[in-house]
Amino acid sequence: MKVGIIGATGYGGLELIRFLHNHPEVGGIELFTSSEEGTIFSSKFGHLLSIHDTPLQKIEVETLASFDFLFTSTPSGVTSELLPPLVDIGPKLIDLSGDYRLKDSSTYEKWYKKAPAPQSIVKKSVYGLTEWNEENIKSASLVANPGCYPTAVLLSVLPLIKERLIDPRYLVIDAKSGVSGAGNKPSQTTHYSEMNENFSIYKVNEHQHIPEIEQAIAMFADSETAITFNTHLVPMTRGILATSYSPVQPGVTNKQLNDCLLDTYKNHPFVRVVQDVSTIGTNRVKGSNYCDVFVQLDERTNRATIVGVIDNLVKGAAGQAIQNMNVQLELPQSLGLDVIPLFI
Amino acid sequence: MKVGIIGATGYGGLELIRFLHNHPEVGGIELFTSSEEGTIFSSKFGHLLSIHDTPLQKIEVETLASFDFLFTSTPSGVTSELLPPLVDIGPKLIDLSGDYRLKDSSTYEKWYKKAPAPQSIVKKSVYGLTEWNEENIKSASLVANPGCYPTAVLLSVLPLIKERLIDPRYLVIDAKSGVSGAGNKPSQTTHYSEMNENFSIYKVNEHQHIPEIEQAIAMFADSETAITFNTHLVPMTRGILATSYSPVQPGVTNKQLNDCLLDTYKNHPFVRVVQDVSTIGTNRVKGSNYCDVFVQLDERTNRATIVGVIDNLVKGAAGQAIQNMNVQLELPQSLGLDVIPLFI
Amino acid sequence: MKVGIIGATGYGGLELIRFLHNHPEVGGIELFTSSEEGTIFSSKFGHLLSIHDTPLQKIEVETLASFDFLFTSTPSGVTSELLPPLVDIGPKLIDLSGDYRLKDSSTYEKWYKKAPAPQSIVKKSVYGLTEWNEENIKSASLVANPGCYPTAVLLSVLPLIKERLIDPRYLVIDAKSGVSGAGNKPSQTTHYSEMNENFSIYKVNEHQHIPEIEQAIAMFADSETAITFNTHLVPMTRGILATSYSPVQPGVTNKQLNDCLLDTYKNHPFVRVVQDVSTIGTNRVKGSNYCDVFVQLDERTNRATIVGVIDNLVKGAAGQAIQNMNVQLELPQSLGLDVIPLFI
Amino acid sequence: MKVGIIGATGYGGLELIRFLHNHPEVGGIELFTSSEEGTIFSSKFGHLLSIHDTPLQKIEVETLASFDFLFTSTPSGVTSELLPPLVDIGPKLIDLSGDYRLKDSSTYEKWYKKAPAPQSIVKKSVYGLTEWNEENIKSASLVANPGCYPTAVLLSVLPLIKERLIDPRYLVIDAKSGVSGAGNKPSQTTHYSEMNENFSIYKVNEHQHIPEIEQAIAMFADSETAITFNTHLVPMTRGILATSYSPVQPGVTNKQLNDCLLDTYKNHPFVRVVQDVSTIGTNRVKGSNYCDVFVQLDERTNRATIVGVIDNLVKGAAGQAIQNMNVQLELPQSLGLDVIPLFI
Repeated sequence: MKVGIIGATGYGGLELIRFLHNHPEVGGIELFTSSEEGTIFSSKFGHLLSIHDTPLQKIEVETLASFDFLFTSTPSGVTSELLPPLVDIGPKLIDLSGDYRLKDSSTYEKWYKKAPAPQSIVKKSVYGLTEWNEENIKSASLVANPGCYPTAVLLSVLPLIKERLIDPRYLVIDAKSGVSGAGNKPSQTTHYSEMNENFSIYKVNEHQHIPEIEQAIAMFADSETAITFNTHLVPMTRGILATSYSPVQPGVTNKQLNDCLLDTYKNHPFVRVVQDVSTIGTNRVKGSNYCDVFVQLDERTNRATIVGVIDNLVKGAAGQAIQNMNVQLELPQSLGLDVIPLFI
Repeated sequence: MKVGIIGATGYGGLELIRFLHNHPEVGGIELFTSSEEGTIFSSKFGHLLSIHDTPLQKIEVETLASFDFLFTSTPSGVTSELLPPLVDIGPKLIDLSGDYRLKDSSTYEKWYKKAPAPQSIVKKSVYGLTEWNEENIKSASLVANPGCYPTAVLLSVLPLIKERLIDPRYLVIDAKSGVSGAGNKPSQTTHYSEMNENFSIYKVNEHQHIPEIEQAIAMFADSETAITFNTHLVPMTRGILATSYSPVQPGVTNKQLNDCLLDTYKNHPFVRVVQDVSTIGTNRVKGSNYCDVFVQLDERTNRATIVGVIDNLVKGAAGQAIQNMNVQLELPQSLGLDVIPLFI
Repeated sequence: MKVGIIGATGYGGLELIRFLHNHPEVGGIELFTSSEEGTIFSSKFGHLLSIHDTPLQKIEVETLASFDFLFTSTPSGVTSELLPPLVDIGPKLIDLSGDYRLKDSSTYEKWYKKAPAPQSIVKKSVYGLTEWNEENIKSASLVANPGCYPTAVLLSVLPLIKERLIDPRYLVIDAKSGVSGAGNKPSQTTHYSEMNENFSIYKVNEHQHIPEIEQAIAMFADSETAITFNTHLVPMTRGILATSYSPVQPGVTNKQLNDCLLDTYKNHPFVRVVQDVSTIGTNRVKGSNYCDVFVQLDERTNRATIVGVIDNLVKGAAGQAIQNMNVQLELPQSLGLDVIPLFI
Repeated sequence: MKVGIIGATGYGGLELIRFLHNHPEVGGIELFTSSEEGTIFSSKFGHLLSIHDTPLQKIEVETLASFDFLFTSTPSGVTSELLPPLVDIGPKLIDLSGDYRLKDSSTYEKWYKKAPAPQSIVKKSVYGLTEWNEENIKSASLVANPGCYPTAVLLSVLPLIKERLIDPRYLVIDAKSGVSGAGNKPSQTTHYSEMNENFSIYKVNEHQHIPEIEQAIAMFADSETAITFNTHLVPMTRGILATSYSPVQPGVTNKQLNDCLLDTYKNHPFVRVVQDVSTIGTNRVKGSNYCDVFVQLDERTNRATIVGVIDNLVKGAAGQAIQNMNVQLELPQSLGLDVIPLFI
């Protein structure tokens, strides 16, 4: 099976390479770029020396058409133009950018401040939150892979909203991410000396993942919400931990909350329901495709604290994308992804 | 003026030394300990070589009675027994532990799981949130210096609650702290290889700072609340950033929220109201006694996002303690504390 | 094939689990411990939840005798007593501790300050520096897996000494390691707040890896040396970079030095000769079994700068141990180890 | 006294502000820049909110001429043109860049790859290694403040070379620096996700501080040397630790080495001779002007290990510059600099 990666020089692209390299059904991986054609990949990324010493290739529709799978891991605003000619002409498409996630074009324009993808293609695309949309993903020609924050948030709160155990009208989500989520382009904010030993808040009430989360809550839990969602930058490279707060519905117990999570995910290899809070942390999923979820009822206030933890580059990007490829190929979801988290 | 520090080997103690060393009204600093009597201080803490080469002294009431000021920076459960004999016999007492903060003994017992201090002494003690309690602090024989989290939270939310701009019934506080808040005793959690690159949540809905915050909201803003408050550990040494969420009262504008903070703190040198969120972050206050506060109304949800940022060891401990000493001596609050944050 | 790990709760043990989990020839992994018998492994190490939910087992010779391979990853002074009864009774033994590395008992006693292993067993043991001792490893009943520092140093300097390109009489080795090399036991030195943002030197001229390096230089390059070797602690979790300095023999060129490395390792998948110094760094090998080596002649001083870089827990411990198991099984050396470094 | 800082937006500039702010003899500090004239300083550097809310000023000779002291903290190649018109017309000049350190123009050109400053001005300039050049600094119109690496190296090795205790012909210096030494300009190397958890070597045998160290050894210890000097980047913000290796002269003892350091620095407040290696580390000097030095003889090899530790931004830049200003004003060297290291 022939797989291509467009946007291979970004961190999402590098993680796709890391996992596809060991995927038993993937023959060869070819790397495409918009601007560094001909560069030997390992001369740019020394960790791939002797592993990927091949040159980056130019993005051309004719070349790409011959692939079985194409992963696009590009900044927003790129695949809205790049992918339409490739839909339904051959390769299955899995887009890791935000361009096909929002079904409503005006919402996309408002939050992304960019021109939306053609509505006809957006309509065809399937939201790739694997555990919640497996059937639709199977036959999709274009998968819109979820954002990193939405993955951590949705996997932890969706079951509780769907079962009407929490009241999503007051849902407050406080999310924290490692710096790799900001991508590989240097900036003052991500300059080591200024990022190190600095915890900060950013994009207050303006993050483009807000409408994505609200849309998925409507789609999978049939609930209209206007969430409060804020994002923070943690001085570490990988990991997202999202803490959500919500009043519970009258009479709901801590056991009901936990049972709901356990029931929902009992057959899903990558979502682990954690009971002991002392074993929750981003390093427990580092480098892996796991999402750890946790819920606890505060009986003093009748509010639930709900936690979702992922590696933003794996379950929040490349790992879930490959999980979706496995679903499309009707392979076990964990094929090529069954690695133990690094922990340290 | 003669100043003693009990619990000098903890991080709070070390910060007291760092600032008192340059305080123009402090003659000599003497260091006391319960267990390492006779140890040359700089042999234990190399950064003090040639600065504090004197031995640690034994804690004895007779010796301590001759001091002008005594700072106690000990784990909870120590000063409840240690301080009563010293009250009103000479030295002014400033306690950095939690033993005298909660006015209600049963609340202390419930959250600290320890025997409370004598009620008569607790009654005499004054809560040392400098900006909100200056008059009472002036004449106090025993100051209960606030906790690190409560300082960051209260300075940011109190003005808005007091002015009835936000509705504290739904107050959700999501706090994040550097690891120095866990003290200097090694443990598995704070072992470098397991703490590094790990963001985690701890003491879910059980942190002993919850009743302290609720008590202060009642005391200074005359509001009964049952807050949701959770704490997270950030892989960095210093700093607390607390993000609070609350619905605003009908009709309240973003300008009103900001004006309220600006008015409240216009004559307070250590609280800075930040307008530009991109300059909020723990490194902006690192090593200093500043507390940066920020508020923004989300018009989509009619909820306010409120942020308080401090160096947990300075404004959250040693710095505020010295600020309180200055208040008691009727000196400028910033004497000995007027240092620029390190930033990097 | 049945594999047991003794000392599974240490970082070396955790890495053995991480790699053996995906090794196609390994059926099941069983975990042994001296002190926590019965503990469910994942209750202690949350990252293994749903992966290793089995209990730790007691160390008993009869049980262990039935295994095909036993890896021991224990502090020094343990396997000197534990392994002798297991030699030649069934399982192949791969010892990751320092107990069987030094052929001379008095040298062991001097540097380790512990009683040595029985001389008869030490004599049988084979030093497991895979690239340099493959033939002997193949048939060894007990492999003494090399130390982390020696691996990084030896792979980079041995070819140049063996070919008489550098003069080892003046060999100065300055090595730097991430904190995971200090193991998982909390201490003041490795307490996060004191280790973070702190670069330090330790065990000046006293590291027990000194005689191991000198013995290997004698063994593989037939040179007697008395090296200068110092070790530093870097505020990061994984990685060793060792910088070695040596005068070159008269007339030796930079090209000769590089060609020597390239020739030596041309058929060895895990040693990569790097030409571009800007791609040298511990993150280029992080999480993988690669050792990156680099050499450059300073023509101004006629001295060579020689660099070796590894992940101390992989090529410096668990990875090389599994590489040695592969050698013994006459499998490709990279089986189960062919993972791409994490980089970020 | 009126003090100006040119290059205030760099990390050296920020540290000058941090210390000059509390210097009792400094009235006001004015900030100059080549490119951001008019920018309110605290809008760019949030940590200075309410402290430096004044605008950056344009660099003009007429304006600058009226100052008592001018500190220039600019990249190399700037002050070679900027300072000549300002010499001897009024302000004392302290240049933190490398432009006036090397007495030989061709050496400057070779290592800096830039046009040198006018030879007449270079000749006038005085090398500002305070402890070794106090008399000349006193009357200098232009002080060339030493580089960060040379400061750490020279303070530790100069006494031993001067007293002929070590043989500098084989001097090997392995230096390690925090990332702030690379300045405040973002780059791929210093991008958080790629710098974090990465220890690397850079500028192998090509660092421009090599001739500076050799020149100072000739100047202060009257020894011609060709040193081996390499530099490494540590994933931390502040701090340099330089480890030097040298054979000792026949018969030299460990006590002689230590006594030499103790004698040399007995009246110098900022150089501390450390006896206990376990208290050596960059965090022991963090944020302060101290340089900790250490020496130990390895009797096995007859080589000395010599260590120098500084905060690269303080003793390695801004702190030493202010120390030199104090010398010129015949004030105590520690005025405004007597701060305790942060440690944590």
